[in-house]
Amino acid sequence: MGDVYVPLSNHEGKVPGWKLRTSFAAPLAAATSLLLVGFSFAITYAPTKASDDHVNQYYMWFIHVMVMIFVGFGFLMTFLKRYSYSAVALNFLLSALAMTVYLLVGGAIQQFLWPEDGRPPKSGKIELDLPLLIDAAFCAGAAMISFGAVLGKASPGQLLWMVLLEVPIYALNQKLVFDVFKALDIGGSMSIHAFGAYFGLAVAMFVACEGSGSSHAKNGASYNSDITAMIGTIFLFIFWPSFNGALASNPDVTTEAPAQTQFFCIVNTVLSLLGACLSAFACSAAFEGKLDMVHIQNATLAGGVAVGSAANLKIAPGGALVIGLLAGAISTCGYVKLSPKLESCIGLRDTCGVHNLHGLPGVFGGLAAALASVLAAAANKSVLLDHGSRTYLYQLAALGCSLGMALMGGAATGLIITKLDPAAQVLPAEKMFEDSVFWAECEEEEEAEHSTQL
Amino acid sequence: MGDVYVPLSNHEGKVPGWKLRTSFAAPLAAATSLLLVGFSFAITYAPTKASDDHVNQYYMWFIHVMVMIFVGFGFLMTFLKRYSYSAVALNFLLSALAMTVYLLVGGAIQQFLWPEDGRPPKSGKIELDLPLLIDAAFCAGAAMISFGAVLGKASPGQLLWMVLLEVPIYALNQKLVFDVFKALDIGGSMSIHAFGAYFGLAVAMFVACEGSGSSHAKNGASYNSDITAMIGTIFLFIFWPSFNGALASNPDVTTEAPAQTQFFCIVNTVLSLLGACLSAFACSAAFEGKLDMVHIQNATLAGGVAVGSAANLKIAPGGALVIGLLAGAISTCGYVKLSPKLESCIGLRDTCGVHNLHGLPGVFGGLAAALASVLAAAANKSVLLDHGSRTYLYQLAALGCSLGMALMGGAATGLIITKLDPAAQVLPAEKMFEDSVFWAECEEEEEAEHSTQL
Amino acid sequence: MGDVYVPLSNHEGKVPGWKLRTSFAAPLAAATSLLLVGFSFAITYAPTKASDDHVNQYYMWFIHVMVMIFVGFGFLMTFLKRYSYSAVALNFLLSALAMTVYLLVGGAIQQFLWPEDGRPPKSGKIELDLPLLIDAAFCAGAAMISFGAVLGKASPGQLLWMVLLEVPIYALNQKLVFDVFKALDIGGSMSIHAFGAYFGLAVAMFVACEGSGSSHAKNGASYNSDITAMIGTIFLFIFWPSFNGALASNPDVTTEAPAQTQFFCIVNTVLSLLGACLSAFACSAAFEGKLDMVHIQNATLAGGVAVGSAANLKIAPGGALVIGLLAGAISTCGYVKLSPKLESCIGLRDTCGVHNLHGLPGVFGGLAAALASVLAAAANKSVLLDHGSRTYLYQLAALGCSLGMALMGGAATGLIITKLDPAAQVLPAEKMFEDSVFWAECEEEEEAEHSTQL
Repeated sequence: MGDVYVPLSNHEGKVPGWKLRTSFAAPLAAATSLLLVGFSFAITYAPTKASDDHVNQYYMWFIHVMVMIFVGFGFLMTFLKRYSYSAVALNFLLSALAMTVYLLVGGAIQQFLWPEDGRPPKSGKIELDLPLLIDAAFCAGAAMISFGAVLGKASPGQLLWMVLLEVPIYALNQKLVFDVFKALDIGGSMSIHAFGAYFGLAVAMFVACEGSGSSHAKNGASYNSDITAMIGTIFLFIFWPSFNGALASNPDVTTEAPAQTQFFCIVNTVLSLLGACLSAFACSAAFEGKLDMVHIQNATLAGGVAVGSAANLKIAPGGALVIGLLAGAISTCGYVKLSPKLESCIGLRDTCGVHNLHGLPGVFGGLAAALASVLAAAANKSVLLDHGSRTYLYQLAALGCSLGMALMGGAATGLIITKLDPAAQVLPAEKMFEDSVFWAECEEEEEAEHSTQL
Repeated sequence: MGDVYVPLSNHEGKVPGWKLRTSFAAPLAAATSLLLVGFSFAITYAPTKASDDHVNQYYMWFIHVMVMIFVGFGFLMTFLKRYSYSAVALNFLLSALAMTVYLLVGGAIQQFLWPEDGRPPKSGKIELDLPLLIDAAFCAGAAMISFGAVLGKASPGQLLWMVLLEVPIYALNQKLVFDVFKALDIGGSMSIHAFGAYFGLAVAMFVACEGSGSSHAKNGASYNSDITAMIGTIFLFIFWPSFNGALASNPDVTTEAPAQTQFFCIVNTVLSLLGACLSAFACSAAFEGKLDMVHIQNATLAGGVAVGSAANLKIAPGGALVIGLLAGAISTCGYVKLSPKLESCIGLRDTCGVHNLHGLPGVFGGLAAALASVLAAAANKSVLLDHGSRTYLYQLAALGCSLGMALMGGAATGLIITKLDPAAQVLPAEKMFEDSVFWAECEEEEEAEHSTQL
Repeated sequence: MGDVYVPLSNHEGKVPGWKLRTSFAAPLAAATSLLLVGFSFAITYAPTKASDDHVNQYYMWFIHVMVMIFVGFGFLMTFLKRYSYSAVALNFLLSALAMTVYLLVGGAIQQFLWPEDGRPPKSGKIELDLPLLIDAAFCAGAAMISFGAVLGKASPGQLLWMVLLEVPIYALNQKLVFDVFKALDIGGSMSIHAFGAYFGLAVAMFVACEGSGSSHAKNGASYNSDITAMIGTIFLFIFWPSFNGALASNPDVTTEAPAQTQFFCIVNTVLSLLGACLSAFACSAAFEGKLDMVHIQNATLAGGVAVGSAANLKIAPGGALVIGLLAGAISTCGYVKLSPKLESCIGLRDTCGVHNLHGLPGVFGGLAAALASVLAAAANKSVLLDHGSRTYLYQLAALGCSLGMALMGGAATGLIITKLDPAAQVLPAEKMFEDSVFWAECEEEEEAEHSTQL
């Protein structure tokens, strides 16, 4: 009795714990030690860029992206009735880990393995500036999208390894998308959202065993957890224009003036989000005759994902609105029609429905930017970057690259984290979606309540 | 049992649902389609204003206002124990709808029907820039204040129509207040807060039937819903200086330098909010010998409302503090003394008490600015705009105009949404304040719990 | 039944209320009246500083600090299962009170008692600008840290007096640290965090009677209250770089260019926070084999505290990371090992564990800056302010001063608020950690539930 979750425990008996010392604390301590060595020897401040403009140009946008990663994704995932502690806390830890690893690995790839102007920094070290911090937060965003696919089903130790493996693959794909294909993807529809979603879905094919699907008794929301999830939704909605525009003032990203590019990113993202909100509500009510919190929490945000690739283009206010309207509808349809099919047909168990919020809208966003480039080329506009009228081909190549890297990388990751040391890492279905397996207070709380009732 | 809300359902039996397809999804889809047509043909970017200064000047303030509308109002209204889903989600949808409609309708009124410098834009289209987005968010604020008056009592379909009807009236009144009366109202005490409150109260006179008042079993808070409501209160408190100062850098609004005007808006709003917080706590404890969450959630914010009209004036730090102190006291007294009287005498059922948070303090704020203009004229100060020592007359005219437009517009809206198609739209009292009438998961959750208990 | 807290009440019987009129409303009204007099005669705008740069330079940072004080500390303290109303609402009131008092008292000390350039402002009044507002929010931060030590145990009236007594002592110590010792403490490790913690702990020695320790039945979290506490943690984590850098653009604080100083504050704080998050999770899991919400909510933030004194120095990215790693570990150890000892040995009952989050990491941060100054002097670097290679001595003096002022001021405050008028103010243990003693709705809610159950 007591609270909504207790009956489950009463019926199923006390869920045994899961010792985190060897499977989680030890590898985390080891990874942290290695990171410390890397930071001590290989990273320095980027002093010449630290002019007044540097902080003014990037700091506010960085904080806004941080709000999206830590508040937005963190609270959005608290929707599970008995996994809210893990959702918000592991989102916190894993995002911090992904950022720290990215600064080292992504910094090395950007500045040494493949430097933009052909030669590495003179200091011989990775030079840390605010755009690199923003890139690190973007990388954490991709990793947290993957986390959403396996939410409640992967153990904390498995999640550590997933992040450690995902970050380098993400950083490599990002370099390919932007420097080899020179694709349009300022807000990361392809390189962040689609990549993160398909990576996580590939991992889920290995981690999400039989019985961990939508019929699992704890794979659902409570009244309170659905409200805390809305904290995530609303903050994501508000700050998304900053996500798509955070690096728009970087002169590399466009032929327009930086402020013009920022302006387009802001206006297009706001309009696309408004469109997705309207269409998600309409579709949700049309499908079931009632509103569904899953759709409202997620599909309303598909406009931010889908406009990501084309946010810096002159797609016109009407164009931005239509991208959002379609994205909201696609996403809601995905939740209602596609997800149940994918679960029953191929056993794809996607806890947060990241396929519907990030996967499909991400692919749609990449294609929308390709279409926009074709239309712009036909109208002889100057928004195209390096590839003129063939931009759409490079766009498709970047999309294919992101999906391929994500699926292959995710499958390899899924294989590694389920087959190596499975006894210590792989959760059985009855321990899934349950905080008390990992959290000290949960047990105590239940005991306290039991003793009160007797 | 289980959770605080379940006993109500147990005693009253299962609340039957409310099909949203025809009453909500269809009109929303139709409105969205019309908006898309409007956006495609009638709106374009405002390119010449998109200089570096434009984004720096407005973007942060725009985001802060968005936080107030979507987080602030959204979570403040989750205080009802069984209507939190609807509160935060309908605030989300209706704000997005109000913003989208305002961009078209308000943009057309501002730039075509009544252009500031006498002629419409050369492009022949509404030119979208960040101040127009901020104005759209302000409009959503007024609409959400109206929503607060009928919270839990109007059906989703009725709320759609309310917003669609309120936005044009709001935009017209806004134009009258600022361009005809050229009144002092930078933070919208009269044109946003008082307008939104009295519009909503007039609607409530039609929508809030017998039995939907403060004695309704579900018209109250739970422990958790009062905490999530505080999320709204605290964010509103923090970001209110940006609400009052968002358009202060616009050279039209004052004879002072823009940065000076922003500075006054910030300092005056902070001090007025501090004053209201202190007096609301003191009054709440003095009235009942205990603190009351309703007062703390609402009356503490009355300082932001009341200083809105005079925020850009040199009212001195002590003047700002005294406005806040009085506003907090007025608002708390309104909750304790006036609201019960209005409910018993004229049947005014005001769910959130918007009359006490936005109505009375808004009127007080308009009058405070009139008084400030009289004092400034007596001291020969230069803060007055176009009307010299007669400013107070225009101020009173703008206040009367806002109240008149709000009450008449609200009454007409209330009549329309209750008398046209009442069978599909009008909620009976037993379906009020109850999420499970409109939300799919709510039912499921209750069923799950029932089955566990048997 | 019903909800997690109800069984406690059922077993213990109805908790009698606590009349707040004389003990709380009256002194609050009196203090507010005095503040109003002070504001009317002694404070004016600082007009010459209100240039464009002034608002651009400080406003965003001010709002970020406000988010930390009102959202961060406010929601972090909602972790108690039956004291969430009081936590977030009293944090709101007391922060507003501390800010208002500081503007007057701190402003007078800064500008009149001990003016920076030797003479007070020509206007003869305290000149209010945005840095003074930021300083006021910092002061509220220190007071809320003290509040954390006595959370649930001090009555609202006692808390009023605590804040009124703490603010002047804080302002005096701040002046000593920065203007006499000219110590390195840009983010307030010593002057805010250590001061606030030891002040609160000294008060707790008087307020926290027998039976109010960790074994008190209501001195613990519920599932929902632990989630709302995470709202506080996450917002503190995100906005902490702005806390440490808010005044970094002030040319007084460093010999570097302002933007360079801001850049170091941002990067160092982000890295230190990332380090503390990683080590707090690893230590928490290592100690108990499970994660503990208390550690995750608090120790993850120790990096922000500990890097506060040295944030503006070139401590290298690796140096910032190692400060965070150590701070997270120290803080977690404090929760696991030290706090139980302090409670059993000397009767120190520290509700939020502020000793572990602010006390120890604050002292560590002051020492870390001293060490950094020694290392920099050895390397002949130019980061040192006025004291060259003897900086560490002044650093130690400032740390000693902060601890001494805090402990003595806190003890005097504790004595005053427990011995003067104890009948009206001192809570017995059975009324501690319980909202319904002070809040009107709580009672009603319980009664409603009782009547449903019968």
